[in-house]
Amino acid sequence: MPSSDESATGAAVIVGVGSGPGRALALRFAGAGHAVALAARAPDKLAPLVAEIEAAGGSARSYQADATEEQAVEDLFARAEADLGPPELVVYNAGGRNNKSILDVEAAEFEMIWRSSCLGGMIVGREAAKGMVARGQGTILFTGGRSSRRALAGWAAFAAGKFGLRAVAQAMAHELSPKGVHVAHMIIEGGIDNERTRELGNDKVGPDGLLATEALAEVYYQTYLQHRSCWAFEVDLRPWSEPFTT
Amino acid sequence: MPSSDESATGAAVIVGVGSGPGRALALRFAGAGHAVALAARAPDKLAPLVAEIEAAGGSARSYQADATEEQAVEDLFARAEADLGPPELVVYNAGGRNNKSILDVEAAEFEMIWRSSCLGGMIVGREAAKGMVARGQGTILFTGGRSSRRALAGWAAFAAGKFGLRAVAQAMAHELSPKGVHVAHMIIEGGIDNERTRELGNDKVGPDGLLATEALAEVYYQTYLQHRSCWAFEVDLRPWSEPFTT
Amino acid sequence: MPSSDESATGAAVIVGVGSGPGRALALRFAGAGHAVALAARAPDKLAPLVAEIEAAGGSARSYQADATEEQAVEDLFARAEADLGPPELVVYNAGGRNNKSILDVEAAEFEMIWRSSCLGGMIVGREAAKGMVARGQGTILFTGGRSSRRALAGWAAFAAGKFGLRAVAQAMAHELSPKGVHVAHMIIEGGIDNERTRELGNDKVGPDGLLATEALAEVYYQTYLQHRSCWAFEVDLRPWSEPFTT
Amino acid sequence: MPSSDESATGAAVIVGVGSGPGRALALRFAGAGHAVALAARAPDKLAPLVAEIEAAGGSARSYQADATEEQAVEDLFARAEADLGPPELVVYNAGGRNNKSILDVEAAEFEMIWRSSCLGGMIVGREAAKGMVARGQGTILFTGGRSSRRALAGWAAFAAGKFGLRAVAQAMAHELSPKGVHVAHMIIEGGIDNERTRELGNDKVGPDGLLATEALAEVYYQTYLQHRSCWAFEVDLRPWSEPFTT
Repeated sequence: MPSSDESATGAAVIVGVGSGPGRALALRFAGAGHAVALAARAPDKLAPLVAEIEAAGGSARSYQADATEEQAVEDLFARAEADLGPPELVVYNAGGRNNKSILDVEAAEFEMIWRSSCLGGMIVGREAAKGMVARGQGTILFTGGRSSRRALAGWAAFAAGKFGLRAVAQAMAHELSPKGVHVAHMIIEGGIDNERTRELGNDKVGPDGLLATEALAEVYYQTYLQHRSCWAFEVDLRPWSEPFTT
Repeated sequence: MPSSDESATGAAVIVGVGSGPGRALALRFAGAGHAVALAARAPDKLAPLVAEIEAAGGSARSYQADATEEQAVEDLFARAEADLGPPELVVYNAGGRNNKSILDVEAAEFEMIWRSSCLGGMIVGREAAKGMVARGQGTILFTGGRSSRRALAGWAAFAAGKFGLRAVAQAMAHELSPKGVHVAHMIIEGGIDNERTRELGNDKVGPDGLLATEALAEVYYQTYLQHRSCWAFEVDLRPWSEPFTT
Repeated sequence: MPSSDESATGAAVIVGVGSGPGRALALRFAGAGHAVALAARAPDKLAPLVAEIEAAGGSARSYQADATEEQAVEDLFARAEADLGPPELVVYNAGGRNNKSILDVEAAEFEMIWRSSCLGGMIVGREAAKGMVARGQGTILFTGGRSSRRALAGWAAFAAGKFGLRAVAQAMAHELSPKGVHVAHMIIEGGIDNERTRELGNDKVGPDGLLATEALAEVYYQTYLQHRSCWAFEVDLRPWSEPFTT
Repeated sequence: MPSSDESATGAAVIVGVGSGPGRALALRFAGAGHAVALAARAPDKLAPLVAEIEAAGGSARSYQADATEEQAVEDLFARAEADLGPPELVVYNAGGRNNKSILDVEAAEFEMIWRSSCLGGMIVGREAAKGMVARGQGTILFTGGRSSRRALAGWAAFAAGKFGLRAVAQAMAHELSPKGVHVAHMIIEGGIDNERTRELGNDKVGPDGLLATEALAEVYYQTYLQHRSCWAFEVDLRPWSEPFTT
């Protein structure tokens, strides 16, 4: 439950900044006055983003953390809180995917995708929740995708991870809402407009046919700003020209 | 698709202002600069709201219309457009309910609830869509409820209407999104904090245990403001202390 | 809850025998020993089916009834019970559909489709339930379709009816199961192999690409036979070669 | 796709016979004439069941296999096929659960529950599918539960596994149905009537308030018997007196 004048209080923690909306989220949260902790397995890549935020007058810091390692995540939250104050807003953004016949899915890759898509979300959500429950406030946002609610042919591994993450988010929302912690699951059903998708040629889908990361970040932040009498649990988002899969 | 600086263009039409979030929606939209058309079966009750909006420097006008009558809705849109300009944002808010054993549900009441909950939404949505498709832009928001996705014992009539309204919203979103029209379905899973629920004693549910109408109106308006690369279809909302029914 | 040796007790009532699985259901139920009441708006067409059942040693009778008229359905159940004994198994099969742009859907056809798809189901279900609750046993089966859970572009009217019927079935199951009445919702997601679909050229979909009505009737009857400790509420059915829409 | 006279062809493989409906499934399948392979981590416990089946004139064999180990499952299918012929019907029944605050869930137990509930299902399903796709026929049944579609407070670990298993089943059904392989997901929403639940005192829920395992096995077998023009994907089952959670 943010203050009504939108003056930010508390730190924001973003896990999974490599691709997806992570970069735009960091800029949006920092722009609103939150000190931002950026966590990634390879934090060197985050230096330009930290510099960009600081140049704009914001506060940011990068951390090395493998979200699927319990100890690493506990350390991340301890360090971020010591550096930036109690996390008020935590986003879990990480994940992995493949697309192949079920006949060719190997247990090792199935597990690896689940670790980043689901297990990491549980660990990050739990560590975020510990402090938030103690303080009676805070917001945890999970990033879902096209495979969060429907498992098409070829997507067993990705869908098992994303269905699982949705289960974690639901169970957390059921338990933590009455304790003052807002848990929401953002379902992104389309391609995200970033360097990677452009390199892949996905920019050919027409004007505004990929989700603009600034627009996505705005929806996340507005969800954070929701008054506690009116909390969203699930928001599904797609470009206007994207066929619905639900 | 609003302009990026949030300066409002186009009129807003709100059907069903009697209870629920209608009043707060009108104030929010008018405050953002939209001329607001308010439609109800008994528009006399709307005079104080029109006066309040005008006193605050906004523009509003009330219309008599039964949303379940095709001709009445066509007339409403013709008059509202002539008076206030093309509708850019339309909200369907009306509905009815009862709660009784299926053994006691009469066809007449089952139908009456469906007419206000579902048929009216189809007619209003269709009439809104006609102009929006021609202009290639616009937003239509439908208000759902606890019975939109789950039909508990005693709620057959209400749920048949609300499931049906959700079907209308889905079919419209599938068809109209690629034509530039944003259709969204807002699911309100809790009691709304207004005079009626307070009279019913529903204010006993604890602090912020009823949905504040201003907070609801903010979520509706933020949904309207979403960039077309990032449109929500469904947003479920409830107070922090409300048990989940999904 | 049938007797364990599958020797049928009680009458079966099938509403909507015109197309769909109605004919096969009648043959299956009569073959198991149930006296079968067949209801349709134009019962003359049912004479050959009644004759076929009787020639095979079964018992059947046709009734004129518009399922959307409350009085007609009450009369149907009164007459059927007087003629054949208390209904033990009731199937609601009727419905209507169209496929057109939401911009072209007229209120009158939207309502007409809803009346046959949803309102009739509520009335038939309710009248069936009255006797079953009193007797503490019985089974009511509703036939859903591809538009019961997902409303694609062009299907607003059909989906509003089928979503609504699903709501009725859910509310009835929640209320009536603890009273000993089994309510189930059978979702048929594919074309049915009958004269009409063959005339439409739908027989071109490949071997077993349309739902064989005998196979469908078997699934319905097995659902009826389920022990009360193990009742299905929803069963979704499609041909092996049919793409999933959920 | 079974032969129409129900004379069984092909072996059945049941993974997870410890609790749940495994024992009754084995008896039902063997009674229909299938040679049955029973797999468990501790196969010694299966000896009485094998003896019981053989005493009744059936054919059964037990195998030691950890379903979460890829090599063990590959070996299981190789041995079972060598011993009993090609598997025609495979059931995945295993799983684990806990119930505790998200704040107390440890990564190790979260992962362990997922391994038995979801990963094992993927591996068993994949190995079953390899031969079935080659033969163009076969049936794979997965056992879901109350946490397959809804994650209540305290059930994050179980639900992450069961949501994930449902994703695997869906992706497999989408891919394998057109190849002649029937994949279905049976959702058991209630307590199962077996020694363990009776010891736990769950037999106090009233007559037929726990799912009778013979009744469950019948539903599984009838699903196997479905004609390929009429395949169920999902069947949700509960006792008549059990409150619905969906």
